[in-house]
Amino acid sequence: MAERPTLVRNLAQVATPLGSSPLRGRAMRNLLVVPRAAIVIREGRFAWVGEESDVPDEFRASCDEIDGRGGTAIPGFVDSHTHLPFAGARESEFNRRIDGETYAEIAASGGGIASTVRATREASQDELSALVLGRARTMVRYGTTTAEAKSGYGLNLADELKQLRAIRAASAASPVRLVPTCLAAHEFPPECPKDELSRDAWVRGIVEEIMPAVAAEQLARFCDVFVEHGVFTREQGRRVLEAGSRLGMTPRIHADELSDTDGAALAAELGCASADHLMHVSDRGVRALAASSTVANLLPGTSFFLMSDRYAPARELIEHGAIVSLSTDCNPGSSMTESMQIVVQLAVLRMKLTVEEALTAATLNGAFSLGLARETGSIEAGKRADFSILDAPSYFHLVYHFGVNLVSTVYRDGREVSSAL
Amino acid sequence: MAERPTLVRNLAQVATPLGSSPLRGRAMRNLLVVPRAAIVIREGRFAWVGEESDVPDEFRASCDEIDGRGGTAIPGFVDSHTHLPFAGARESEFNRRIDGETYAEIAASGGGIASTVRATREASQDELSALVLGRARTMVRYGTTTAEAKSGYGLNLADELKQLRAIRAASAASPVRLVPTCLAAHEFPPECPKDELSRDAWVRGIVEEIMPAVAAEQLARFCDVFVEHGVFTREQGRRVLEAGSRLGMTPRIHADELSDTDGAALAAELGCASADHLMHVSDRGVRALAASSTVANLLPGTSFFLMSDRYAPARELIEHGAIVSLSTDCNPGSSMTESMQIVVQLAVLRMKLTVEEALTAATLNGAFSLGLARETGSIEAGKRADFSILDAPSYFHLVYHFGVNLVSTVYRDGREVSSAL
Repeated sequence: MAERPTLVRNLAQVATPLGSSPLRGRAMRNLLVVPRAAIVIREGRFAWVGEESDVPDEFRASCDEIDGRGGTAIPGFVDSHTHLPFAGARESEFNRRIDGETYAEIAASGGGIASTVRATREASQDELSALVLGRARTMVRYGTTTAEAKSGYGLNLADELKQLRAIRAASAASPVRLVPTCLAAHEFPPECPKDELSRDAWVRGIVEEIMPAVAAEQLARFCDVFVEHGVFTREQGRRVLEAGSRLGMTPRIHADELSDTDGAALAAELGCASADHLMHVSDRGVRALAASSTVANLLPGTSFFLMSDRYAPARELIEHGAIVSLSTDCNPGSSMTESMQIVVQLAVLRMKLTVEEALTAATLNGAFSLGLARETGSIEAGKRADFSILDAPSYFHLVYHFGVNLVSTVYRDGREVSSAL
Repeated sequence: MAERPTLVRNLAQVATPLGSSPLRGRAMRNLLVVPRAAIVIREGRFAWVGEESDVPDEFRASCDEIDGRGGTAIPGFVDSHTHLPFAGARESEFNRRIDGETYAEIAASGGGIASTVRATREASQDELSALVLGRARTMVRYGTTTAEAKSGYGLNLADELKQLRAIRAASAASPVRLVPTCLAAHEFPPECPKDELSRDAWVRGIVEEIMPAVAAEQLARFCDVFVEHGVFTREQGRRVLEAGSRLGMTPRIHADELSDTDGAALAAELGCASADHLMHVSDRGVRALAASSTVANLLPGTSFFLMSDRYAPARELIEHGAIVSLSTDCNPGSSMTESMQIVVQLAVLRMKLTVEEALTAATLNGAFSLGLARETGSIEAGKRADFSILDAPSYFHLVYHFGVNLVSTVYRDGREVSSAL
């Protein structure tokens, strides 16, 4: 027997991008904005969206009702770049940076990513799973319903598997839909000597041992690599991502984050789902992304947290026609936040996106980069009923009323997931 | 009969500045940090603070217990510059600014402060009081226990009185202690012609009618004026503040916000409690503040919201020895936030305060500027028990774990005020 539909009524507004395809250029501003709106949910999906006065009789006749209390419904945020399964915090390192120490000085004294690798290796799978779940619960309170989650602090076979298994174990209880990515090529671990031969051998280990084991357990939908001077070369990046593709993992890439390594063009060439960071992307990189379906995934929380004035050239990317998305980059070293609201605020206030562009980037375009644009990222009939109700009379307040959590209730697959956390 | 004391135990940390005097220079970094801490509250005040293992027997014997659940206790924030009693929102104007319109263009089309004056004049005292109360409830959820609240959107006798009466009416139910300021000299109202004579006559009206009426009802503890090119001149500012002083209202001043009008030096000369904004303060102004007891009240939310890279020279002010405080400037046109947490984050990430300096500025130094440093602003025996428990293992997380609300419970005068809102 079919479930009774649910009618969400008394909404000041529904504001959403539309479609199953990503939006580029001026189209990123084309939100559907329905005033005095209502939403009908049936079997976990949106069945109808429109003005409340127009709700079809078939739904009105027999449905459960939810009072939107004059709020604004927006799609659940899709956070398509996070490093959720980590242990340890690096808050003291943060204060050292405020007092003028450089990242290199901190790393030389045992801090930086190495300290997170140490803590993550020491944690059990259950501990990591609990940490993922705790962070997912914070995410959902701020309106995220789908999140990518990367490994990359294990950096050996056992600990990369442990991180990915922790994501899988957390998934059942997680209010947020989790999409796992193998980032065994996040950094070379401390035990790998720094010479070229040793590093190449390490990459061979990633490609021939770690990634096949991850694929055998179907632990990751995506693979990822950090291409950067002093970390993985373009050539090593290519080897990792091509191996991942052969194993059924769609590639993503940390590109042009600290310097221009032509990573964006590599991403487009390899058909990556996303090229992430892009603070140092070249004009050539911008054009390559604009001519591709690779999403330019921007992470302004990182620039904010690292006290940098250098943000990715968001306006340029949009004006050239690249698909732009936004994510938290939630991680303990350079962006310790689970909130897509602060990311949207930074996108507008620091990267000069309009509120409409930022909302499209944080929902539909992110969903596209995770291969989920047919399923989520907008409020329209047929898609999974993933949405938030904001305690606000319009979507502008997402940026206008900054610094406070505007999300009052969150639904995923039509089920409330923000209460009882 | 005396109340039973309350023991707050199982705190990872208490972090607080100390004393009843404001802190300057390097002393702003001198937090008391007590690990594995406990707090004893008696009759609304702190009775004892220290390591849990050292709680005196007299308290241990008969007290109620609160489980701090491994969190960090910090003093309640003191938000010493807000414009709480306003009606209307200006979120669309905000979007116009994103699309490139200037403040002057927006004002010319009826937007800007004039639109808030219109909405505030149209609102009843009860409506304004409900708005103040709603904002105070948001404030307390983010850890504020004392807030200044200015009039300044009425701009005539009846509506300035209405705003201040609305603050008084909200006070009884407000979880936040409210401290009212008369800002009748916020701007010249639309009905005042722009010539010099008319403006001088308007100032006479403020000084001879509005302020005496405010004083007669004891509606304001402070008076304030916006000294700026095109608004009130230094001489008019002096008249307003001297008149306020004679009426028993301690002066504050909006100084050097949009340009250098030597407002900081005027503030020091007049013995103002605070000189606020200071984005354009001169070296002379910095030195004048450093040599005075006038607090340099910095409002970084405004620069952030207005997408400006110009922040007040916080490091210079601290290094010269000025007393620095931090506030939200909560208002509908240039800083729509109730959260002191985002203000602390901006102070560190954009103005390069250390976390310790920011915490001192947001608590003890703000309390001093409101004449309340003997009563609140730090966690120590004798002061009112105004504090928050953060869901965090240390005070560093206030900035480190950004974008999410870290406050779990808030106490004012020893009573929990964050629940049942």
